[in-house]
Amino acid sequence: MQEKIAATFRQIQKEICSGLEQLDGKGKFIEDEWKRDGGGGGFSCVITNGDLVEKGGVNFSAVEGDLPSPLQEEFKTGNTTFFATGVSIVLHPKNPHVPIIHMNIRYFELGNGTWWFGGGIDLTPHYVDRKMASSFHNRLKVICDKYHPDYYVRFKKWADEYFFITHRNETRGIGGIFFDKLQENELDKARLFNFVCDLGRAFVPAYAEQVENFKNKTFSEKERQWQLLRRGRYVEFNLLLDRGTKFGLQTNGRTESILMSLPPTACWEYNFKPEKDSEESATLALLKKGIDWVNPN
Amino acid sequence: MQEKIAATFRQIQKEICSGLEQLDGKGKFIEDEWKRDGGGGGFSCVITNGDLVEKGGVNFSAVEGDLPSPLQEEFKTGNTTFFATGVSIVLHPKNPHVPIIHMNIRYFELGNGTWWFGGGIDLTPHYVDRKMASSFHNRLKVICDKYHPDYYVRFKKWADEYFFITHRNETRGIGGIFFDKLQENELDKARLFNFVCDLGRAFVPAYAEQVENFKNKTFSEKERQWQLLRRGRYVEFNLLLDRGTKFGLQTNGRTESILMSLPPTACWEYNFKPEKDSEESATLALLKKGIDWVNPN
Repeated sequence: MQEKIAATFRQIQKEICSGLEQLDGKGKFIEDEWKRDGGGGGFSCVITNGDLVEKGGVNFSAVEGDLPSPLQEEFKTGNTTFFATGVSIVLHPKNPHVPIIHMNIRYFELGNGTWWFGGGIDLTPHYVDRKMASSFHNRLKVICDKYHPDYYVRFKKWADEYFFITHRNETRGIGGIFFDKLQENELDKARLFNFVCDLGRAFVPAYAEQVENFKNKTFSEKERQWQLLRRGRYVEFNLLLDRGTKFGLQTNGRTESILMSLPPTACWEYNFKPEKDSEESATLALLKKGIDWVNPN
Repeated sequence: MQEKIAATFRQIQKEICSGLEQLDGKGKFIEDEWKRDGGGGGFSCVITNGDLVEKGGVNFSAVEGDLPSPLQEEFKTGNTTFFATGVSIVLHPKNPHVPIIHMNIRYFELGNGTWWFGGGIDLTPHYVDRKMASSFHNRLKVICDKYHPDYYVRFKKWADEYFFITHRNETRGIGGIFFDKLQENELDKARLFNFVCDLGRAFVPAYAEQVENFKNKTFSEKERQWQLLRRGRYVEFNLLLDRGTKFGLQTNGRTESILMSLPPTACWEYNFKPEKDSEESATLALLKKGIDWVNPN
């Protein structure tokens, strides 16, 4: 089963890269294969200076070995082995009207046979468009509803909590879904596996819809500057708060693959406040937990 | 004594801002006063778009109140009150030949009367110049030697350990000195206070020497790009590893003052490797612990 999951995830990575190249039209992925000291490895696919994507990565890994000690504590287990495989994506588009997107699907197994799936997908528009935010969430709801009537509501709330920049008191973007440690008390293993695969395969069409809607919108220097400031917030989230980043670095993961999520350029401006009644302040007002994006006002 | 220390630190902040304005020639500090919920507050002084400094901050704070719970654990004490005052500086120069500099002096006191001083100063050249790195360290050694013959060696080593970017296996720059929890078993309180004040007052002349040496050196687009990548590493250090940043954010400090240390612009490039035998790779080779900068080869 481990091999089947890893092989399918690797296949999904390839499909996504190929779909994104089509969407971009110009940018091509370069692929780096890497080995992990202690067992396993991965393929990191990176795209830069495309027509659409300024910098983005689609990472696949399948690693195994002795469970690193910070994880022994977290998983409340002693010395044991582990196996983990997943696909992780972050794309930073050139045009500030096109949202940043992130997706992750993962499978984890301990030496004693305990296993779980996790994952998530969330959208970070530099400018929130209610209609397109709603469309994104509705797509996620359709997938969730195929598996359990409660999944969308539970996992949307989980994303609101997870993708929250505590020290800024704002969400990273309009959220999406997030879930972790889904085990057989949820659904049987094959169903959960199908769920995360469906999510992986929904990534390209969901992003394509956003891209097609916004990619031809021209942008000003001011809008570009706002994008760079919002990327600064993305960096803050990823380095200060993201558990996946922390986990990867603590367990001696491949730094360049983990930090692939960082933008090509980001800015910080002391105490920046957008003008009253501007598009930028309208977006800030929507970076809150608990918005019903399936049926927004 | 608390009041005397805080007043002196505030005075040192003013002297530094005035010295830096002279050094810059164009940029002026703006000053924000802020209050902390729970007790105390500070003055954040920020300079942007100067001739010398692209973005920099000189922060003073004197805060007090109930000891936040993450600190109760760290200081192995129960519910109690605390008082903390300090000056913190980070300057990001425009010219990549001029180094980034950081300085901090701080005093901490618990409700039961336990007190300590901490601090540090370190230099992060985008291009390491051995002579100027040596001059910086020799200045620090002169101050340390006034107080204890072992201080420079001990605190230089401490800086090597502290300003180390684990996941990159490189130091942040050429280091300097770092120390924490200096108490009366070191020196009497008045001497320790003089030591950190001397350090604070040595900041402007030490940086001025670097600035005067490099500020008129022209730079290329390639050198600017390298500066932006090195700033990316600075961001990684500050958000992933710096205990002061973590401490400030965990204890609901003022986010804009804590993150004043972040650069105006930073870049990330996947798996960037400088060319062999370039100035950039020569600098990378010197970002190591344990270099004797007082007498470099």
